[in-house]
Amino acid sequence: MMREKFWQRGKTMRLGGVIGFAIGLMVLPAAAQQQDSIVLRTTGSFYVGGRQVDIQGEPVWQVPLPDGEIQKVDHNGVHAVEQMYVQYLLPQNRKGKLPLLMWHGGGLTGVSYETTPDGREGWLNMFVRKGWDVYVSDAVERGRAGWAMPEVFAGEPVFSSAQTPWVNFRFGDSASWSPDPAQRKPFAGSQFPFEAYDDLLKQLVPRWLTTNDAIMAAYVALIDKVCPCVLLVHSQSGTFGYRAALARPDKIKALVVIEGTLRGDAATAAALKGIPIVVLYGDNVEKSASFSEQRETNMKMAALAKAAGGSIEIINLPERGIKGNTHMMMMDRNNAQVADVIQEWLVAKGLAD
Amino acid sequence: MMREKFWQRGKTMRLGGVIGFAIGLMVLPAAAQQQDSIVLRTTGSFYVGGRQVDIQGEPVWQVPLPDGEIQKVDHNGVHAVEQMYVQYLLPQNRKGKLPLLMWHGGGLTGVSYETTPDGREGWLNMFVRKGWDVYVSDAVERGRAGWAMPEVFAGEPVFSSAQTPWVNFRFGDSASWSPDPAQRKPFAGSQFPFEAYDDLLKQLVPRWLTTNDAIMAAYVALIDKVCPCVLLVHSQSGTFGYRAALARPDKIKALVVIEGTLRGDAATAAALKGIPIVVLYGDNVEKSASFSEQRETNMKMAALAKAAGGSIEIINLPERGIKGNTHMMMMDRNNAQVADVIQEWLVAKGLAD
Repeated sequence: MMREKFWQRGKTMRLGGVIGFAIGLMVLPAAAQQQDSIVLRTTGSFYVGGRQVDIQGEPVWQVPLPDGEIQKVDHNGVHAVEQMYVQYLLPQNRKGKLPLLMWHGGGLTGVSYETTPDGREGWLNMFVRKGWDVYVSDAVERGRAGWAMPEVFAGEPVFSSAQTPWVNFRFGDSASWSPDPAQRKPFAGSQFPFEAYDDLLKQLVPRWLTTNDAIMAAYVALIDKVCPCVLLVHSQSGTFGYRAALARPDKIKALVVIEGTLRGDAATAAALKGIPIVVLYGDNVEKSASFSEQRETNMKMAALAKAAGGSIEIINLPERGIKGNTHMMMMDRNNAQVADVIQEWLVAKGLAD
Repeated sequence: MMREKFWQRGKTMRLGGVIGFAIGLMVLPAAAQQQDSIVLRTTGSFYVGGRQVDIQGEPVWQVPLPDGEIQKVDHNGVHAVEQMYVQYLLPQNRKGKLPLLMWHGGGLTGVSYETTPDGREGWLNMFVRKGWDVYVSDAVERGRAGWAMPEVFAGEPVFSSAQTPWVNFRFGDSASWSPDPAQRKPFAGSQFPFEAYDDLLKQLVPRWLTTNDAIMAAYVALIDKVCPCVLLVHSQSGTFGYRAALARPDKIKALVVIEGTLRGDAATAAALKGIPIVVLYGDNVEKSASFSEQRETNMKMAALAKAAGGSIEIINLPERGIKGNTHMMMMDRNNAQVADVIQEWLVAKGLAD
């Protein structure tokens, strides 16, 4: 079977213009850090979850390549699909009483929590330094988790373009975007390191819109492997974190949500009344319809939790005098300050010394 | 434009059978390690290389999803493509005189060098413990590097199936493969941890056959950022490592090749006569036509290097009494022993204390 349309798209593509090699921030890591050493019991990684599929009877694609050669693509056979990748750093001086799992948002990977795009330490290092066993994952289909063929993943991957983070990560409103960095007008006082915007773009990975159940299954497999634990989730994984708590309410001892949605009702609020939950919001939420709506949803869930005898706290950072934070607060210039807010909450819940 | 064929393949797919959820090796990391602590100056990650493309004038795909909804896929806009992901661990007690860069093989990511599929420490940790600043990368298109749309990557991604590693990683010959693990007959004395074969499969990621130049460009960008250095390359990246040395002969101070091909001639041998090169081979090479051929090619290059006044050493591990190693010797049961062979060679070259 010739995938003619697909191939012809490749052959007849019109690139509007190659903008050129982006200039990386040439900050050498050693020079960028002036901190104490990090002492680990160990560090490593593993895969968890997923399944094997046996694909049989598919035709072999014959894909013409630009050089005239024919590429044969044969998907038949047994494949490992829908697994998840997890990397862990385990500090010697452990102060967190449970593992801390960090789950990334949509179109992103665990890199969200590593070094910031402008070369500062991210929350992975910060929470390891605070004494937490940290497990950062790449969800199914993202990053080192790999991704599967169309026989397994329905639909098409979605690729974010340069303007996507501008509005979705609440750097500014859509009218303030410009392809020219000098013309972009972020919200006043924004803490995102905009000089590294192009480096943020490099972190974006394709996503599917049809894989939520597979993502969720792998997260539950992770919980079954390393929990009881504390979950720290961001954006898209707010929903996954809340679903995970419902799936394993005995395993999740606290849920920290960075601008993500808690999708539930009175019944879920009652089911999770024993799990302390906090949702953090940065600045300028009221300037974004989608984030305002998300926060409204969570405030309703907070009321339901309270009625059920549980606790969902909403922390609006500006009300604590912490201004300018974006949806990517783990990368913002004051990311250490926001980490301290989370740590203080976890200590108050008795989860760390 | 409806991508009918593509979608219909998805709708009419026939999975020969879902084999079921693979059972992960439930080895908790803390329990698996009985070693000294790892003391780091710091650890982190960055992206390097790549370019931005401005895609304009592409039709918006309307992709029917299994639930009847229509997914609109619009690739138009500016995208960051062909960047590479790099993670670094920098030990406090530095003994390696230069950074050590570890490049993975085809269909793989930097995970190759992390914890082995059966949960032991990999070469990343081992060389950090030996005092090297280690930089492990995910090449363009692999893992956390992300991958690009068909307007940028020609051809189709290739997905390895369960039997692919069996022959390609020299675990056994093709006749000795069986879908039933109990029926597989690896080469006698093989050091690969076959009980974790399914976990190895989870590490495999799709690859393209048309992206070598983009991969190479990002590797050179990495060299320009962090070198002078030592390169340790595996399999497919043997070619990349040799090309990198030719592109930046002043920056590469040694090249360690794990069963990869040095593609060159008398001229390249002369150009690289100042760079010590070693190629390691495991066991059973003579039972594989492709690896035998690869070693022959490298032995010819070694002769050309010698004639030019340079040095390419071929180390056949069995000749040193180290038996049973596969193409994935960084994961084999005796991976520490093989790491020691490399370390000894680097010390002899004056590159580590």
